[in-house]
Amino acid sequence: MTDEIFDSTDSIRSAAPLKHVQYFELSGPLELECGARLQQVRVAYETYGRLNAQASNAVLVCHALSGDSHVAAHDAQDEPGWWDVLVGPGKDLDTDKYFVICPNTLGGCRGTTGPNCADPATLKPYGGSFPNVSIADIVKVQAALVEHLGIGQLLAVIGGSMGGMQVLQWAIAYPDGVRCAIPVATAARLSSQALAFDVIGRNAILRDPHFHGGNYYDAGRPGEGGVFLPANGLTGLAIARMIGHITYLSRQAMAEKFGGNRHQPRSIRSEFEKDTSVASYLAHQGDKFIERFDANSYLLISRAMDRYDLGEGQALRQSLAPARCRWLVAAFTSDWLFPADQSMEIVNALLANGQGISYCNVRSACGHDAFLLPNEVATYGGMIRGFLEQASRATPAQAAAEPELDADGRQADTSIFHGRRIDYDLLEEVLASQASSSQPSVLDVGCGSGQMLLRLKRRGWRRLQGVDIHESAVLACVQRGVDCIQADANDGLSMFADKQFDVVLLSRTLQAVYNVDRLVEDMLRVGRCGIVSFPNFAYGPLRDMLYNQGRAPEAQGLLRYKWYDSPNIRFFSIADFQQYCQDKKLTVHRMLALNTETRREVKEDPNRQADLAIFVISRG
Amino acid sequence: MTDEIFDSTDSIRSAAPLKHVQYFELSGPLELECGARLQQVRVAYETYGRLNAQASNAVLVCHALSGDSHVAAHDAQDEPGWWDVLVGPGKDLDTDKYFVICPNTLGGCRGTTGPNCADPATLKPYGGSFPNVSIADIVKVQAALVEHLGIGQLLAVIGGSMGGMQVLQWAIAYPDGVRCAIPVATAARLSSQALAFDVIGRNAILRDPHFHGGNYYDAGRPGEGGVFLPANGLTGLAIARMIGHITYLSRQAMAEKFGGNRHQPRSIRSEFEKDTSVASYLAHQGDKFIERFDANSYLLISRAMDRYDLGEGQALRQSLAPARCRWLVAAFTSDWLFPADQSMEIVNALLANGQGISYCNVRSACGHDAFLLPNEVATYGGMIRGFLEQASRATPAQAAAEPELDADGRQADTSIFHGRRIDYDLLEEVLASQASSSQPSVLDVGCGSGQMLLRLKRRGWRRLQGVDIHESAVLACVQRGVDCIQADANDGLSMFADKQFDVVLLSRTLQAVYNVDRLVEDMLRVGRCGIVSFPNFAYGPLRDMLYNQGRAPEAQGLLRYKWYDSPNIRFFSIADFQQYCQDKKLTVHRMLALNTETRREVKEDPNRQADLAIFVISRG
Repeated sequence: MTDEIFDSTDSIRSAAPLKHVQYFELSGPLELECGARLQQVRVAYETYGRLNAQASNAVLVCHALSGDSHVAAHDAQDEPGWWDVLVGPGKDLDTDKYFVICPNTLGGCRGTTGPNCADPATLKPYGGSFPNVSIADIVKVQAALVEHLGIGQLLAVIGGSMGGMQVLQWAIAYPDGVRCAIPVATAARLSSQALAFDVIGRNAILRDPHFHGGNYYDAGRPGEGGVFLPANGLTGLAIARMIGHITYLSRQAMAEKFGGNRHQPRSIRSEFEKDTSVASYLAHQGDKFIERFDANSYLLISRAMDRYDLGEGQALRQSLAPARCRWLVAAFTSDWLFPADQSMEIVNALLANGQGISYCNVRSACGHDAFLLPNEVATYGGMIRGFLEQASRATPAQAAAEPELDADGRQADTSIFHGRRIDYDLLEEVLASQASSSQPSVLDVGCGSGQMLLRLKRRGWRRLQGVDIHESAVLACVQRGVDCIQADANDGLSMFADKQFDVVLLSRTLQAVYNVDRLVEDMLRVGRCGIVSFPNFAYGPLRDMLYNQGRAPEAQGLLRYKWYDSPNIRFFSIADFQQYCQDKKLTVHRMLALNTETRREVKEDPNRQADLAIFVISRG
Repeated sequence: MTDEIFDSTDSIRSAAPLKHVQYFELSGPLELECGARLQQVRVAYETYGRLNAQASNAVLVCHALSGDSHVAAHDAQDEPGWWDVLVGPGKDLDTDKYFVICPNTLGGCRGTTGPNCADPATLKPYGGSFPNVSIADIVKVQAALVEHLGIGQLLAVIGGSMGGMQVLQWAIAYPDGVRCAIPVATAARLSSQALAFDVIGRNAILRDPHFHGGNYYDAGRPGEGGVFLPANGLTGLAIARMIGHITYLSRQAMAEKFGGNRHQPRSIRSEFEKDTSVASYLAHQGDKFIERFDANSYLLISRAMDRYDLGEGQALRQSLAPARCRWLVAAFTSDWLFPADQSMEIVNALLANGQGISYCNVRSACGHDAFLLPNEVATYGGMIRGFLEQASRATPAQAAAEPELDADGRQADTSIFHGRRIDYDLLEEVLASQASSSQPSVLDVGCGSGQMLLRLKRRGWRRLQGVDIHESAVLACVQRGVDCIQADANDGLSMFADKQFDVVLLSRTLQAVYNVDRLVEDMLRVGRCGIVSFPNFAYGPLRDMLYNQGRAPEAQGLLRYKWYDSPNIRFFSIADFQQYCQDKKLTVHRMLALNTETRREVKEDPNRQADLAIFVISRG
């Protein structure tokens, strides 16, 4: 078993003192949500890069349960940071462009006021007497720091896991203080399962015979930076950490790390079980954690996380209502501690509130750890980079004027069709004609890389939202400044509220969807009207092919796939769709037929002459 | 929070003495796999029903980690059993028909010799000196009991979780002793994740200050049945149990139990954290477990489970090679402790070994607990009932002669087609003509309720295997005595070895499959030849409909679905498939065309006159 299997999450953190930490003392006492008051609060933080003259390039990074202010190495000689994969010069969170701030949380044990610090009233460690802190308290202290640094509005707040909860809290508690929120691998409240793991970890600590109600410090011997150290190592803290480590990894990641060499443990000194590779890993992680982390901080911060609860459904919508920032939400497919459906709940609430948002469920085998590991940084890091670049442009017009965006129309936009998107010209015209207001809202389902939405954005339309099933589509949209969430159109559009959009667009999407009925129904629930474009299966050459050659229709243009490899699985004609609308009692407001080979609109016998149709429909 | 949320898994077990326990003493010392020897071994067991004259109706039930011999209540006054949902008079494991035996495992703490018993050498409790036991040792003791009861061959061995491991061990260690093996929610070896949870539980016990190396009994005061009780409750055992309980439940089940009433804990007396509903649940489960279970047994049995390792892939195939029984394997979709892919590994190894097997991944939200709960018993219990009924018939001919099976042909077999299956007559003929041996083997992919396989079974063919995506299809097959595994044809047939079958059949399946290429390729890897039947999309009336009416083809018979709700997603003609075979360099040995409306074979212009085609193909 090699050493690298021990490199997981923030286990690279050591107990070594942090060389670049700065300190900020709050000007007065801090009132906590629980009603208690802390007379003195000191914040340990690190910064990277330079704040620009307008103070508009500051990004606050919020750390997770056991993290600290050392988000990245400051130079080649420095200790590694816990988010080195993302943060640094030239990296996705580019410290050459942005001023990055990372404070240790209130109640932590790495410099910011916490239970291992001396209570000014007694000069003894707070220990078990440290008051309960909440995520709101943690964010309040961060806000004081941000103000102290002369920043009126953060360009972005970003954080994973419990750090993501702080991002949510920033967005709702300081709506004017944040332009962009990037919650990663997080939740608006813990799942009951995650809560249960925390409960067990705390039980192990609380029932440890050395815990003594939290007063376990060697009070006569304060360590570096005035913090106190435990007189005895707490086995319970190691047990809690071991449980944590399982929840940070996916089953697959554990199988890869420990499956092959199960009976070849690493030779380590430990009093814990160590006769399998996974046991030696857990023993090592447990032992190491005792050395560097404080049990009272663990209890305190895990309780803050457990108690954070923005509710579900309608309650969550209300909780998030004050937010006014732009959103990029990321989850990871194999994360079961903060699973993607919990990110999706946040996304749904924001969508139902009418906020533009991008969301990606990044494919990963790494579990919750994925946000800290290099494996998926190309995807989610690329999104963060693109999102921040778009967000840091001064005006929307500037954002839309990117030269690279002029490629629109010169390349295939989706995998289904090729050739110049003449249908987009027509669609744009139809959309403009349907717009009842000067700021019509459009939902594009199956938006691909967002070209249609970008066209509308250039028209000055602002209430635009894309949906696509592919990670790559979300990435492309985010890089263009187009909001896009990752979702499968087969599952319907339940994340959107009734009549939330003026127009819902299905541009060459419906023929690739299995659950046609469900999608059309949801489309007309969510949109005041629907615009559907689809290839016409009764186009003359296709008819000929089946009739005269007895072969599955296949054409050069729209239907160029073979019967066995086509992404299209529903074949219907203009006449079929007309019949469908009639059967389902849908009103057809307009029908445009197009021949994409001749690039002309078809007026005569469209069901034979056109290879593409555009319908504008609504319910009733 | 109501009481029923506390009723989970075997938490219904109390510490109350078991009234119907019988004891059996091994005639000599027991040599253990670890090399140690136990001088005296006593087995506590319970039986239900009567052994018939031929001793052919005995079913052995193997319990899981914390179970005992009390699998079911013996009468209305009796304590509930841990598998009452399945076992009892008239139930799926029907004690009116079968003689059910359930012993407490070796090393357990409920009557069978274990660490809480007196060591005959010292008359003190074994405690920490009890030797390591293995799953093989546990099964060896069970085999001695079975022999003692006068049973030469068990009709079946059944068990879930660690009980399922014992089932596997029975099948390979006593191949002549078992007719049917029913491993439920189990694995051929624990996942690294499951192993890790066990490690942490053991660490909590081993580092408990009251553990004293396992010698924690009040040695002067043996309890009921001569077993010793701990002098102090072990917090570590409660922690281990709490971890266990999370792993028994699915995330969804926990959300349902504890999500709504998170901040309404049950009022309980406990020294554990109890300020949320889930915390009070865990505290209750932990406290209760200390009262009824022995920490040394927990260590011993969890280690036996952790060390059981039949390998993976080729090694697993070899491990399972000695088995000669029939198999029914069941997993549950939301079980993440013994996830379905681990059952599938067992299934794949058995399939590659050429063993007939039925397998179902039962849809459930209950997690690992599902096998003990009433929720899914209609499905998996029904399978067990049908499987045992089929297995307990004396001869295969008898099995195939069921009156209910004569309904074949009078009802729709799949959801795709209706009408009398005239194509089956032809398929049967083609199959018979392709059979190179008198015992040809056939794999039917998309077998539905198994009608085609049943026809072949009646012909006397024995090497038959079905595959279907639907749980209901597996159930129907099992009830008919047809082996069927649940799998998605879109994922290919990787579970089968090269050239494992004489014929692979795709009867009206291909047109409903997205990944056509992959399936056809795998079909011809696994089978010496492939037989594909499919609806002909170039059938005259269909051509007419598109050509003359400009409408998606839809017919009364084979293609009666609408374009938007059809299960068919691939449309191709006889000519298309011929071209496909040519392009892919497949040899077409035979082509039969059929008109299912006229019920005749079509010789002239089949691509226009036939609505169904049957191809016999092979690679190269």
